[in-house]
Amino acid sequence: MKISNPFFKKKKNIYLHDIFQSLNVKPAYKNQKIDGINDLSNSSKNEISFFNSLKYQNELKVTKSKYIITHVKYKKLLDSNFSPIYVENILKSVANITYLFYPNSLDDLVDFSVSNPKKHLFKNTKFGKNVLIGKSVKIGKKTCIGHNSIIESNVIIGDGTEIGNNVLIKNSIIGNNVKIQDGAVIGKNGFGFFPNQKKNKRYPHVGIVIIGDHSEIGCNNTIDRGSISNTIIGSNTFIDNQVHIAHNVKIGNNCIITGQVGFAGSSKMGNNVQVGGQSGISGHVKIGNNVKIGGGSGVIKNIPDNSNVMGYPSKDLRNFLKENK
Amino acid sequence: MKISNPFFKKKKNIYLHDIFQSLNVKPAYKNQKIDGINDLSNSSKNEISFFNSLKYQNELKVTKSKYIITHVKYKKLLDSNFSPIYVENILKSVANITYLFYPNSLDDLVDFSVSNPKKHLFKNTKFGKNVLIGKSVKIGKKTCIGHNSIIESNVIIGDGTEIGNNVLIKNSIIGNNVKIQDGAVIGKNGFGFFPNQKKNKRYPHVGIVIIGDHSEIGCNNTIDRGSISNTIIGSNTFIDNQVHIAHNVKIGNNCIITGQVGFAGSSKMGNNVQVGGQSGISGHVKIGNNVKIGGGSGVIKNIPDNSNVMGYPSKDLRNFLKENK
Amino acid sequence: MKISNPFFKKKKNIYLHDIFQSLNVKPAYKNQKIDGINDLSNSSKNEISFFNSLKYQNELKVTKSKYIITHVKYKKLLDSNFSPIYVENILKSVANITYLFYPNSLDDLVDFSVSNPKKHLFKNTKFGKNVLIGKSVKIGKKTCIGHNSIIESNVIIGDGTEIGNNVLIKNSIIGNNVKIQDGAVIGKNGFGFFPNQKKNKRYPHVGIVIIGDHSEIGCNNTIDRGSISNTIIGSNTFIDNQVHIAHNVKIGNNCIITGQVGFAGSSKMGNNVQVGGQSGISGHVKIGNNVKIGGGSGVIKNIPDNSNVMGYPSKDLRNFLKENK
Repeated sequence: MKISNPFFKKKKNIYLHDIFQSLNVKPAYKNQKIDGINDLSNSSKNEISFFNSLKYQNELKVTKSKYIITHVKYKKLLDSNFSPIYVENILKSVANITYLFYPNSLDDLVDFSVSNPKKHLFKNTKFGKNVLIGKSVKIGKKTCIGHNSIIESNVIIGDGTEIGNNVLIKNSIIGNNVKIQDGAVIGKNGFGFFPNQKKNKRYPHVGIVIIGDHSEIGCNNTIDRGSISNTIIGSNTFIDNQVHIAHNVKIGNNCIITGQVGFAGSSKMGNNVQVGGQSGISGHVKIGNNVKIGGGSGVIKNIPDNSNVMGYPSKDLRNFLKENK
Repeated sequence: MKISNPFFKKKKNIYLHDIFQSLNVKPAYKNQKIDGINDLSNSSKNEISFFNSLKYQNELKVTKSKYIITHVKYKKLLDSNFSPIYVENILKSVANITYLFYPNSLDDLVDFSVSNPKKHLFKNTKFGKNVLIGKSVKIGKKTCIGHNSIIESNVIIGDGTEIGNNVLIKNSIIGNNVKIQDGAVIGKNGFGFFPNQKKNKRYPHVGIVIIGDHSEIGCNNTIDRGSISNTIIGSNTFIDNQVHIAHNVKIGNNCIITGQVGFAGSSKMGNNVQVGGQSGISGHVKIGNNVKIGGGSGVIKNIPDNSNVMGYPSKDLRNFLKENK
Repeated sequence: MKISNPFFKKKKNIYLHDIFQSLNVKPAYKNQKIDGINDLSNSSKNEISFFNSLKYQNELKVTKSKYIITHVKYKKLLDSNFSPIYVENILKSVANITYLFYPNSLDDLVDFSVSNPKKHLFKNTKFGKNVLIGKSVKIGKKTCIGHNSIIESNVIIGDGTEIGNNVLIKNSIIGNNVKIQDGAVIGKNGFGFFPNQKKNKRYPHVGIVIIGDHSEIGCNNTIDRGSISNTIIGSNTFIDNQVHIAHNVKIGNNCIITGQVGFAGSSKMGNNVQVGGQSGISGHVKIGNNVKIGGGSGVIKNIPDNSNVMGYPSKDLRNFLKENK
């Protein structure tokens, strides 16, 4: 859960009392400059962090952060080294403070700064017609970008990577020798918001999408960037057409993901996993290494390493076959 | 089931005997001018209507229409105030007459009249590169339209609405403060036709798509316009990526529809409904208010208000969980 | 399983000893020129072929090919008329030799030769804005191609065919009076490769996509071309939005395929088949004629003619309904 984005501009000169004010809480500590917001594991000394679940007690022991946004019910878990900031809704408060640091992260539907590539800046890239490239985009050697594709400002592309036609990439780091097929949309904000009867409230997505070397992304895929962590596709992982990967998902190396599969937010998957067509992976589920998931499965619970499952909900493959003879 | 479209040009000077001729039926009544075709509830005095199912007996009692296309088996249900027109295939006949009134409604795959936006006509809209705008399009204040997007002639867009890249919109009314993500296709004709061994026969789609205020449409969504009624998405309803919504579907307010969900034609859904990823809703099914549908469900029957369901086919959530422990 | 492609340039002057060398096998026969590689049924006298499964014993009896790539375990099945070439991995070897004949077949992500259509070459076609057309494309009379669509070099389009906006077509033969809706991607290579821990190895896709007369392809469909045979859609077959059709799939005439259905590689389907929304068809499965498949089904076994099935996995419809009352 690393909150960091090399692309979004972070606002400087945020002070602790700005944070209290933004949370509508009376300042409880002496004012000081705060460098950013981060999760417990990754935060530095001058960053603020948060504690929202008993699952993260181990992280509390190692965090360098002092100021912790949390709920008063967790009071006893924070020793006297911490300076807790008590709020009613922890995640909403984290969203508010993230927005305070990254005021542009909510509103990036279209990058109007893009223009046709200046060839002298990209001597080693072959461009199709009508390509649009944002400012500060970096593209490696021996690369190509197909017709009508849009590479927005916040993108880095490695060497030997090929991008098809009608592709849209934003807020992403693409590795070397990656292939991205036609019509894929990579790096837009995820489906994360606080429901509200009159007007839902979007939370900031400051994570990015990272795609490892030698991987392949299929046609018309949608891979959303993370909210409070990155969406990560490992190396040498091949993904078929019409796959949807939601925000914060982590997929390992050497995976094979067949057509029309969907990953809900924050699901995790190890290495060497094969996922059959049209399978769905629920949010926050963890799938181990060397797992095989049969086509059409619905995975709603964690799956240990080396398992072979199928079904909705998914179960051991032998049981599925026995029950469906 | 309102048959009306503010965009398609309706042919004037259609007379009752033209209708009889088009249906290959001998004229049974005195000739007179007919203003259009409409469903029972919405038709005015000089419009023709139709009765094709016992489900619509109540509508028969209130309709203002006199001339009713129907089958002779329903003869007893129509009292002497009506002038029934008996046909073999009611829906095919309705399609024929709809086509008679809207001869351009079958053939709108591409709007060749579009051109780059004239900036003096759209002073309050920010346009990306290569945007194409049709004639008579209306776009509100504080709006933006992303690169390569196409807004065809028959579209009205409200204030504060943002449209992403590579979006295609036709035959639609989009509300205020709506967000439409990249690659969505909105308002094309639905998957409605009469199968025929040599050459299927398309029926006219004269409905439109209506999207309410503050709603959000995900990437690569496909939302088809209605055939004999409108496709409607309510207000503050958020839809994730790769969702398919067929013709005539009605979705209420404050709904949350997760990735890769599919709605078959003419399904209806109330307010405050949550639909988990990859769920499918069968045609003509009615889902009440405040319903929660678990991911991967297949809904083939109506669901009453306040239900919590999951499974294929969907059942009460507690039963689903009990059976799948 | 016909290996042939009218579009990819076949390398001439390949000799038998080149093939042995490419397979890393010591030449066992006298050198001679070889015209190509083909499956048993379709190969001519001077083409090489392969035998990789007992399922193809009948084809062995009729093939005109003499040189057969196979495994030593099949030694007894090949009589003395054949000149077998023994390898460890038959399909990998076939991929190697296919690549030897079609060295450009692996690398066609983007056709950089396309340009705006020269109107004097396509007098009978109506073009939208920003259309890109490859070299040697043939387009019939009374056709239209919508805005931003790309028709790559290796495409033939029949008379009366209409293509929507943002469509991408490559390596395909499209019949007469076909409709292809917006955003469809037709003819890219399939999801076929040999998994390898460090770097998966793609095999060549030298098949094409063939679409029959009067058929309709929905929005955002992805139809991949074949690897060692063609992907075929019959005549008067209508396909709804967001359908995925993998490499080598054969679909018959007069089929109706509803939204979000997926076909895995090499599945076959007869004529007059109806497939309900979100159904999935497993790889290599055969579905007969006049079959009805209910929405959401997962078809993992062959289905005989005139069946009516539903469920995951699919079973007789009556049983499905009885078990799910």
